[in-house]
Amino acid sequence: MRQPEKLVIQTLEGVLRKYGYSAASARILAQNCATAQRDGSESHGLFRVKDYISTIKSGYVNGDPSPKVEDVAPGFVRVDADNGFAQIAISAAKDLVHRKAEVNGIAILAIRNSHHLGALYLDVEDFADRGFVALAFVNSIAVVAPPGGKSGVYGTNPLAFAVPRAKGPPLVFDQASSTVSHGDLQVAAREGRLLPDGTGVDKTGNPTGSPHAILNGGALSPFGGHKGASIALMIEVLCAGLVGADFSYEVTSAETPGARTARTGETIIVIDPRKGASRLPSIGERVEDLVGALAAAGQTRVPGDRRTRARKESGRYIDIDEEKWRDLIALGAE
Amino acid sequence: MRQPEKLVIQTLEGVLRKYGYSAASARILAQNCATAQRDGSESHGLFRVKDYISTIKSGYVNGDPSPKVEDVAPGFVRVDADNGFAQIAISAAKDLVHRKAEVNGIAILAIRNSHHLGALYLDVEDFADRGFVALAFVNSIAVVAPPGGKSGVYGTNPLAFAVPRAKGPPLVFDQASSTVSHGDLQVAAREGRLLPDGTGVDKTGNPTGSPHAILNGGALSPFGGHKGASIALMIEVLCAGLVGADFSYEVTSAETPGARTARTGETIIVIDPRKGASRLPSIGERVEDLVGALAAAGQTRVPGDRRTRARKESGRYIDIDEEKWRDLIALGAE
Repeated sequence: MRQPEKLVIQTLEGVLRKYGYSAASARILAQNCATAQRDGSESHGLFRVKDYISTIKSGYVNGDPSPKVEDVAPGFVRVDADNGFAQIAISAAKDLVHRKAEVNGIAILAIRNSHHLGALYLDVEDFADRGFVALAFVNSIAVVAPPGGKSGVYGTNPLAFAVPRAKGPPLVFDQASSTVSHGDLQVAAREGRLLPDGTGVDKTGNPTGSPHAILNGGALSPFGGHKGASIALMIEVLCAGLVGADFSYEVTSAETPGARTARTGETIIVIDPRKGASRLPSIGERVEDLVGALAAAGQTRVPGDRRTRARKESGRYIDIDEEKWRDLIALGAE
Repeated sequence: MRQPEKLVIQTLEGVLRKYGYSAASARILAQNCATAQRDGSESHGLFRVKDYISTIKSGYVNGDPSPKVEDVAPGFVRVDADNGFAQIAISAAKDLVHRKAEVNGIAILAIRNSHHLGALYLDVEDFADRGFVALAFVNSIAVVAPPGGKSGVYGTNPLAFAVPRAKGPPLVFDQASSTVSHGDLQVAAREGRLLPDGTGVDKTGNPTGSPHAILNGGALSPFGGHKGASIALMIEVLCAGLVGADFSYEVTSAETPGARTARTGETIIVIDPRKGASRLPSIGERVEDLVGALAAAGQTRVPGDRRTRARKESGRYIDIDEEKWRDLIALGAE
C-alpha cells in the first residue's frame, strides 16, 4: 500500500516520542527512517522501528541527547553525541562542517559516543546536494570475523560516498564492508532464505550461507576476502581509533537486555570540489562523463540509480507493506 | 643475492639519469623503487625499471618536471605535476600538506597531470611516521571492467592507508581495487601461472583466470564484485573528477608507442589524530589494542607485517634476484 510521506513521518514520530525519544530526536529519526523506506532501503526502513523502541526501553541509549560540538581546528569538528543517535549529532554540527569545508577545502566531522540504526548514505547525500563530495564511515558491533578467524571483531562497518551529478541527484553508494549488512542478514533469517556460501562462518569457523548458523555463534565475513577486511579495519581506525570511541569488539550492548544498537563512533569527510578542479567542466559534469563510459562498457546501473528511481516513482508517497503499517499504527496506540 | 641499499639506489639513480630523468627525479624514483624492492613488493621494485626507461624514451613523460604547487585553501593543496611522476609532486608539496594537516586537523593534496609506477603505500607511510593518518588514491589505465562489462573502464585504482602504531612502524595497507594489481598480473603472465577463475574476463566477457586472456582483449575484474567496483568508482572521482585529471578510460598512452604509464591524478588525505581523540590513549596505542583483538580472533598477520619483517631482515641490504641485478648493471653500462 501507499501512504503519504507526511503521514508516515508523523506516525513514526508519534511512536518514537511515545517510547521516550525527545521531540528533536523523534523528528530526525522518523525523517531518516521514512526516507530509507521511501528509497527502497527496506532494511533501514520501518523494519527498524522495533529496534529503535527496544533499544531505548533498555536504557542503553539516550533519547534526549545534548550533543557537545567542539570546534577543534579550522577543518576539524569533534562531537560527543551524548549517547544519542549519530544523526542528532550530525544535525547539530552540519552547518559548521559545511562552512569549514567551504573555507578550508576539506573538513572532518568525528563523532563519538553515538548510535546508528539508519542508512548511512543519508548522512552524506545532503552534503552532495550542497555541492560537496562526502565520505562517511561507521563502526558497530562485532559480527564480522577477520579472514581465517571464527569470531567477530569488526562491525559490518559501512562506507558511504556521495558526489554531485550535473544531470540529477548525487551519485551515492553505501555498502557494508561485510558480505551483506546485518539488516539484510536478519531479513534473510526471518524469510528463511539461504545466502551464498561464504557469506559468513559458522561457530567452528567453516564458511556457510546459513543466516541461522551465522547468527548463532558464527560471524559474517568481510566482502572480497582480505581486501574487504582491510576496509573494515580502516573504518574501525577512522571511527573509533580517531575519535576516542569504542572499537566494535569493545561494545558492551550485549550486557544490556533489549539493547539493539552499538555505542561507537562515526566519521564524515567533506571535500569542496570547487577547490580541486582548475578547469571546467565541473565535477558534476565529469561524473556524467564517467557514468556514460560505464554504460558504454555494459554497466547499465550505477550506484544510487535504484534509489533515485524509487524516489521518483513514489513522489510524496511511500510504499509500505500493509502488515508493517498496521503494526506501526498499533505501536502508537498501545 | 644481497646488495647494500645505498649501492642499489645509486645504481638505479645512474640508470634513470642515463635515460633522461633529471637528477631530482632520478633520486626520488630510485629511492622509491629500491624501497619497494627491499620491502618485498616485487612488482613495484626492480621489475619496473624497464617501464621507467621505456616510458621516458617514448616522450610520454616529463623526466624533468617543475611541479606547480598551489595553496588553494587552508586545507587544500593542488599540484600540477607538469607531466612528471606523482612522487616528484608529492615531494614538492609534502611539507606544506604536513603543516596544513597540523593546523587544520585535515588536509588534502590533489595532484593532476601525473604518472605513477611505484608502490602507493610509500606515499602515505611517511605521513604516518610523522604521526598522521593518511589515505591515498590513484587512478591509472582502463584495464578493469565494471561488473557485467567486458571492456576496461577503471584503472586498478589502488587505495593505500597508513596509521601510526605505538609499538612499531605504522600499520599500512595498499590494495588494488581490482582482484590483482596489473603488476602481479604481468608477473603471473611472465611466469606462466594461472590465476583464480574470475580474476578477470576474456574478450567476450566470460570470467577467466588466464593472465593471457585478460591481457589480450580482456580485462581484470574488481575485487569483491560490485562493492569493489564502487571503490574503483570512488577512486576515479577522487583522483580525476576532483582535480581535473583524466579518468582511466580517457588516458591516451596507447597512442604513444613505448609509453608504460598513465597521465592521471592522485589524491592524498592527511588527518591529524591528535585533534580527534579527546582522551588518552593515543591512536597508536588504540591500533595496538585492535591488532591484539585480531590476533585473539585468529588473524595472525595484519597489513604491513610482511613488509615490516622484510625490512627488518634486510637491514641496510636489499635482496635482489641475481639476473635482475646484472640486467640493471648492464642498463647502466649500455
